[in-house]
Amino acid sequence: MTPARYQRIIEVLDRRQPDLTLILEGVHKPHNLSAIQRTADAVGVLDMHAVSPERPYRSRKGTAMGSQKWVRVHNHAATADAVDALQARGFQVVAAHLSERARDFRRIDYSRPTAILMGTEKYGVSGQALALADAEITIPMTGMVASLNVSVAAAVILYEAQRQREQAGCYDTPRLDPELRARLLFRWGYP
Amino acid sequence: MTPARYQRIIEVLDRRQPDLTLILEGVHKPHNLSAIQRTADAVGVLDMHAVSPERPYRSRKGTAMGSQKWVRVHNHAATADAVDALQARGFQVVAAHLSERARDFRRIDYSRPTAILMGTEKYGVSGQALALADAEITIPMTGMVASLNVSVAAAVILYEAQRQREQAGCYDTPRLDPELRARLLFRWGYP
Ligand SMILES: C[S@@+](CC[C@H](N)C(=O)[O-])C[C@H]1O[C@@H](n2cnc3c(N)ncnc32)[C@H](O)[C@@H]1O
Ligand SMILES: C[S@@+](CC[C@H](N)C(=O)[O-])C[C@H]1O[C@@H](n2cnc3c(N)ncnc32)[C@H](O)[C@@H]1O
Repeated sequence: MTPARYQRIIEVLDRRQPDLTLILEGVHKPHNLSAIQRTADAVGVLDMHAVSPERPYRSRKGTAMGSQKWVRVHNHAATADAVDALQARGFQVVAAHLSERARDFRRIDYSRPTAILMGTEKYGVSGQALALADAEITIPMTGMVASLNVSVAAAVILYEAQRQREQAGCYDTPRLDPELRARLLFRWGYP
Repeated sequence: MTPARYQRIIEVLDRRQPDLTLILEGVHKPHNLSAIQRTADAVGVLDMHAVSPERPYRSRKGTAMGSQKWVRVHNHAATADAVDALQARGFQVVAAHLSERARDFRRIDYSRPTAILMGTEKYGVSGQALALADAEITIPMTGMVASLNVSVAAAVILYEAQRQREQAGCYDTPRLDPELRARLLFRWGYP
């Protein structure tokens, strides 16, 4: 590893946000999964959660641009498993969903430990997940089409989180547990 | 057409932003084109410009969710044709590009007539386009991956434009020329 690459990895690790994550409920199109993982990496997400009873998450090489190495994906068989575990650790779970109850996505405080829950391309977030979530959020739409592409919606929300966290200084000091940071440095640095 | 649908179309037309547009330079993956068109519809874009010397733009049915009907796509053989025509009409052309010269995308005033220029998946914005553009903008990235998916990048910028335009009251009063509005109402209403 070159010193420049080592420096780069250190910088990225020191900007990782262990308390910002995504839960993908049954999102299954590879290009969507990969685009989401790439955006997650770009805003400093450390861990992502994928719920898919049938097939465990695997990202496709092309679109993810190697981001599968940089964002850890945890597979869950049921949404409740992922939501419960995160809430137990103090995360608020906000479901991205188009409903009357939902508030504007910009009204959430994303500097708090937050998990953003995204629904499937076809059916959206499940009723069970909505019942478990702490809040529902919606991205305002002013056109004829009823919903955004799921990777687009995830990105719009993640970049609002990035904006708030930048302002709150969350990227200014290292956030990772030293033992985990050392482990990731080793894994990222030596392929 | 039901009265509710008629009302919906009127509302959408009255929030359309004739002075906010996209130029897609050689973006060719159908799922990216379609996701971009869907986001464009959602923030009120009326017209989009596609530059592709070889194949004229056609959106795929699935991902666009019918948005090809609501956002008009104009094909151009060369980037300069699209850029020149828009600049002649008073648009600022901002190129989304990862460079040293680029400023943060949030520092642009999108309430001005604005065209957002996006580059190809593989090579980014062409040198020729960068030379013609009024500014270069970049979305901050803090991870290991070098760039965002193009439909994701377009969406993050378009929703910053939406935020600014909402604040500036651009969606509060109809913006379309009455003759064009009548023509679109006819076309959208009677399939
Ligand atoms: C294609 S949409 C699902 C559409 C589905 N037919 C429905 O009615 O929920 C896929 C996912 O993207 C997210 N999404 C899309 N547009 C959104 C918006 N405007 N606001 C919030 N989330 C959105 C949601 O998580 C949704 O479950
Ligand atoms: C996949 S990127 C192109 C990457 C290409 N290898 C390059 O170096 O330009 C496709 C397009 O998405 C847009 N894009 C992607 N990430 C961006 C970012 N962080 N800031 C601004 N634009 C971005 C740009 O318009 C870019 O041309």
